[in-house]
Amino acid sequence: MSRAPRLTTRVVRVGERVLGHGHPVLVQSMTNTPTQAAGRTLAQIRRLADAGCELVRVAVPNARAVAVLPKIVKSSPLPVIADIHFDHTLALGAIQAGVAKVRINPGNLGLDRSRLVARAAAKAKVAVRIGVNAGSLPEKLRRTAKTPEALGRLMARTALQYARALESAGLKQIVLSVKASEVHASLAAYRLLSEKCHWPLHLGLTEAGSELAGSIKTAAGLSPLLLEGIGDTLRVSLTSDPVREIRAANLILAATGVRRRGPDIISCPTCGRTASDLAKILQQVEKALDRETRPLTVAIMGCVVNGPGEARHADVGLAGAPDGSFMLFAQGKPLRRVSPAKAVPALLAELKKL
Amino acid sequence: MSRAPRLTTRVVRVGERVLGHGHPVLVQSMTNTPTQAAGRTLAQIRRLADAGCELVRVAVPNARAVAVLPKIVKSSPLPVIADIHFDHTLALGAIQAGVAKVRINPGNLGLDRSRLVARAAAKAKVAVRIGVNAGSLPEKLRRTAKTPEALGRLMARTALQYARALESAGLKQIVLSVKASEVHASLAAYRLLSEKCHWPLHLGLTEAGSELAGSIKTAAGLSPLLLEGIGDTLRVSLTSDPVREIRAANLILAATGVRRRGPDIISCPTCGRTASDLAKILQQVEKALDRETRPLTVAIMGCVVNGPGEARHADVGLAGAPDGSFMLFAQGKPLRRVSPAKAVPALLAELKKL
Repeated sequence: MSRAPRLTTRVVRVGERVLGHGHPVLVQSMTNTPTQAAGRTLAQIRRLADAGCELVRVAVPNARAVAVLPKIVKSSPLPVIADIHFDHTLALGAIQAGVAKVRINPGNLGLDRSRLVARAAAKAKVAVRIGVNAGSLPEKLRRTAKTPEALGRLMARTALQYARALESAGLKQIVLSVKASEVHASLAAYRLLSEKCHWPLHLGLTEAGSELAGSIKTAAGLSPLLLEGIGDTLRVSLTSDPVREIRAANLILAATGVRRRGPDIISCPTCGRTASDLAKILQQVEKALDRETRPLTVAIMGCVVNGPGEARHADVGLAGAPDGSFMLFAQGKPLRRVSPAKAVPALLAELKKL
Repeated sequence: MSRAPRLTTRVVRVGERVLGHGHPVLVQSMTNTPTQAAGRTLAQIRRLADAGCELVRVAVPNARAVAVLPKIVKSSPLPVIADIHFDHTLALGAIQAGVAKVRINPGNLGLDRSRLVARAAAKAKVAVRIGVNAGSLPEKLRRTAKTPEALGRLMARTALQYARALESAGLKQIVLSVKASEVHASLAAYRLLSEKCHWPLHLGLTEAGSELAGSIKTAAGLSPLLLEGIGDTLRVSLTSDPVREIRAANLILAATGVRRRGPDIISCPTCGRTASDLAKILQQVEKALDRETRPLTVAIMGCVVNGPGEARHADVGLAGAPDGSFMLFAQGKPLRRVSPAKAVPALLAELKKL
């Protein structure tokens, strides 16, 4: 059960996937290989798909990238989104190449050229994301925003203006994003969009940082929105292997109750009462469950204070005993004591039985 | 400037630190050494203090731990909080040993014995945290809560009941916590507390998980509260080296605008336009700024789309060029091109000048 019902947005098709109107919030990422190196790009797309990515974006910075798009689109296991800046002919080429969606920023294409893209996309039934970023707002405009919240509202109003212009050009399949690197700007931007329009929203922060710092910032920034029912797809932007973005996105969706993908592993922080190397056991369990897709709850607890209570509420669990051994739990019942060396295999065996 | 003004709570002194009523939200952690190994415990406390920890909790599970408390209290650079379960005489011993605060859960001490602790604490001017955990609620009571939100409200009501009982026993210096491992339960619990009382609140999720998963869950769970002005101190519970909890806590406080401690490093996720190994550069910068305490903004950007814009708004920044070199920015101005090998030293040199 989702604990945060989605706000109603229009339906937008992106290849075989559907965004908006109660459909699951989709997880996406972006390749960081040179797109024209089609083999490497496809290999990365496959790794992303294996990790649970549902939509993939590729940068299309030049004609060489456009030239390999038909091949990438044909072999990709995921709908392909072309990321275009500055040159609208690249967007027209990408649409011809069969991508499922193009992402443009009318701020750097110009509105007239963006309308040409909108017309071509509408004709080819290709979706368009209008992506406004704080960093690419015209400097003169940006200077008028004196607070992060004002910057956010400015981004939202800019995105709405672009969306209305492209809608007048005949485009219906529109997705919006308003990314900033600051949480308050981002909250103000997405809240205003969700109030003022019904286009599906692509959530994300830009330039969030390294895997850990960027995941924390993105979780802090998107959690209030997701909990309010805002958001139809998300990307966690990290300066790292894009595959790492998928796990972070899934963890954010799971934490906010929006979508459970894979196991929820609860584990205690260990303290002076812990008689075992819990971090090591946790690492082994996390690794073994890397590809687990069932929404299971697994408890890895160090001691007798909260251990048995939490382990009892999990599908399977381990609770440490003072002598260094563990009590194995499954479906609420203590099963037997196991040694530290046998704890993880015993837990995994119980998981298989479920 | 804090972007999230704190709600008014009472003032509670914990050693030389002050909680509540507009004071900074304090970062705390808990040692995971055997407390009776006083040398190891003190070494860990010093590492925590170096990393920016402001209050430290130690488990006091037995008389041997009580016996070393005077030594730990005397040599600790941080106010020491004794974590007590099951046996109220350990709490009385800890108060005598001179700790700044005791953390008890009247649910496992019993109310009468908790009152004895409250009287001793009030007399010795020691603060008491009443920490209710979802996992340690009586099973019969817990079963009455049919949703995470109901569980949260139950935890909050239980904590309030305990707090009023201890207040009647003469205790004034009370801090409350209501930790669950589920975000919705946690939100409902803390929101109800903040509505119903003015005691300072210690925020946290329990059993949050590994460094990455636990940080994401905690950020998702605490961000809405911090943004609403709720919370006077926090701990990020991770199954890892407790020192890692401090960085995660600082990142959550910074992201929500509650408290800036150290630099904000914004960096782009890299894409097919990136001509340099940005993740490596970011890693070097993060490491070099590990002990930086000034609230600086540093931008590490891969390309020309958002790079110059973001770099211009940072105190210092690097924006990648297509040839693999970087443009160095400081205080809004492009300074000069630097090679990848010289990019980090050049950035750090500019930071020193500020």
